[in-house]
Amino acid sequence: MPRNKQILLDNRPQGEASASNFKLVESDTPPLKDGEVLVRHHFLSLDPYMRGRMNDAKSYAAPQPLGQVMQGGTVGEVVESRNPKYAVGDKVVGFGGWQEYSVVAADQPGALRKVDTTHVPLSHYLGAVGMPGVTAWYGLVRIIEPKAGQTMVVSAASGAVGSAFGALAKARGCRAVGIAGGPDKCRYVTEELGFDACVDYKQHKDASSLSKAIKDACPDGIDGYFENVGGMVMDAVMLRLNAHSRIALCGMIAGYDGQPVPMSYPQLLLTNRVRLQGFIVSEHMEDWPQALQELGTLVGSGKLRPRESVAQGLASAPEAFLGMLKGRNFGKQLVKVS
Amino acid sequence: MPRNKQILLDNRPQGEASASNFKLVESDTPPLKDGEVLVRHHFLSLDPYMRGRMNDAKSYAAPQPLGQVMQGGTVGEVVESRNPKYAVGDKVVGFGGWQEYSVVAADQPGALRKVDTTHVPLSHYLGAVGMPGVTAWYGLVRIIEPKAGQTMVVSAASGAVGSAFGALAKARGCRAVGIAGGPDKCRYVTEELGFDACVDYKQHKDASSLSKAIKDACPDGIDGYFENVGGMVMDAVMLRLNAHSRIALCGMIAGYDGQPVPMSYPQLLLTNRVRLQGFIVSEHMEDWPQALQELGTLVGSGKLRPRESVAQGLASAPEAFLGMLKGRNFGKQLVKVS
Repeated sequence: MPRNKQILLDNRPQGEASASNFKLVESDTPPLKDGEVLVRHHFLSLDPYMRGRMNDAKSYAAPQPLGQVMQGGTVGEVVESRNPKYAVGDKVVGFGGWQEYSVVAADQPGALRKVDTTHVPLSHYLGAVGMPGVTAWYGLVRIIEPKAGQTMVVSAASGAVGSAFGALAKARGCRAVGIAGGPDKCRYVTEELGFDACVDYKQHKDASSLSKAIKDACPDGIDGYFENVGGMVMDAVMLRLNAHSRIALCGMIAGYDGQPVPMSYPQLLLTNRVRLQGFIVSEHMEDWPQALQELGTLVGSGKLRPRESVAQGLASAPEAFLGMLKGRNFGKQLVKVS
Repeated sequence: MPRNKQILLDNRPQGEASASNFKLVESDTPPLKDGEVLVRHHFLSLDPYMRGRMNDAKSYAAPQPLGQVMQGGTVGEVVESRNPKYAVGDKVVGFGGWQEYSVVAADQPGALRKVDTTHVPLSHYLGAVGMPGVTAWYGLVRIIEPKAGQTMVVSAASGAVGSAFGALAKARGCRAVGIAGGPDKCRYVTEELGFDACVDYKQHKDASSLSKAIKDACPDGIDGYFENVGGMVMDAVMLRLNAHSRIALCGMIAGYDGQPVPMSYPQLLLTNRVRLQGFIVSEHMEDWPQALQELGTLVGSGKLRPRESVAQGLASAPEAFLGMLKGRNFGKQLVKVS
């Protein structure tokens, strides 16, 4: 059996997460039992939700256990199989974690899924045609319920979720407006992803200033907002919400490192009769097939061109993850493992 | 025609509202045109939403115009009629404002409604069997969608909305928990209104302390919350929300006087996958008949015994209103006009 490198959560962050929270270890992969397959990971997915799970706090998911392999999505190929449904060479999406190999009981529901890489590159099954894409789909379609002509806004627009959200909103005849950090990301959002406008939040030092820029980008106000970050960006968007607008609350990365970040103007939820829904996409598995089909078509037809930041080698995962939390990635953050 | 006393909004509050914002004037009632009736008001309704409309700010309703009669709900009787559908002596509910008489174009939809005072006292049509009651009904039934056995919490529990909310929640087999200010109100909430528990927020100086008391009153957490006040009370309740709980956002009186009051822990909306809906009951007229029927039955059968604070005489309206904003009323705040 091959040697396996793994990254464990060694200790929990006190405030900001750091590389010292993680530990790289090496071990042999165990022999397969009946029904199991050995997957060699090509890419790991790094996602903001992982930061929340590093804390030992009540949340929608159990905390990441200490001393165990960091959990997360993976794509790879089957290199050994004791399961008749999987053959060596099959490309698969799973939840193998921050390691080079995983042993998977492949018959467990949701554990592993074979994918077709004819029109969609394997790595995109961790992004636009995977969990982040479905997250955007669920927030837009099931929570926001957009109508053609309405204005849809997403924060972290150049990321995996944001880019899919824009393409899905445009496909429904909406005005799509992104919020992103820096001129390069904003240019990508409008020129490559096809958003109608993008606002660079780094040009603004408070919610009032940012809100004025959002007003220029959203002359008819905002009907739907997909929230990935919280804090000042959310405050600024809320100042431009229309009556009966909807907020899909998916992430609040601004508060992951410690003190909760308040919402400054909650009364706007009342005066605008806003519907806000917090959600986690793994609780809505019934929508995944429909969402993945639409997302695969958008990617296959070139209407959604997701961008990726790829860190090289398993050992680079902690630094790549910490950089993503600070917005240093550009598009979906991956780690190329082999 | 009789002389009419009226209270106008003379100027807008700078920060806290005060009696000097209002002005009492006297005039003759104009002669009736065809289709109109003259209503002599028995009671005016004083409601927290009026404070929001005193500001010249974007909200769900147009601001109360300066120099005009303060708008608001009224009950009274027809004393003169040039409308064949109304006879002298009819008891009616309308939106006559802070004055002793109103001239009403009675054929306009929603302008006037005849009511039966056999089982329900006239004044209750401004409270439990009126707008506040329907507000509680809509928030509970249409937004929170309670299930038997779940825990429902309402702030300002001894008020017109809160007391109706409790009776409606109990009728659906829920645990009903109130939050109110002071031992007298809390005693009334549990002993007279039939709530299972009531927490006195005045015994607590911060959200953390209040939250511990709420935990004792809600051992299984909170599944539905009806928000009337915002601020510290809302923060404390949010710390006890269950996964997939619902918030009906009806009022945020804590912020009406000036600076917005932030929401301290918005990330709880995400981690608990909360659905929050701001609403104003006048946008949901289709639900009024069903709601009023249930509320009338609850009052007629003694299952809902609403309490009223009645100020005497039109001139007392401003002070009674300002006192209500500070929680000095006990139950539905009315002004007896004649």
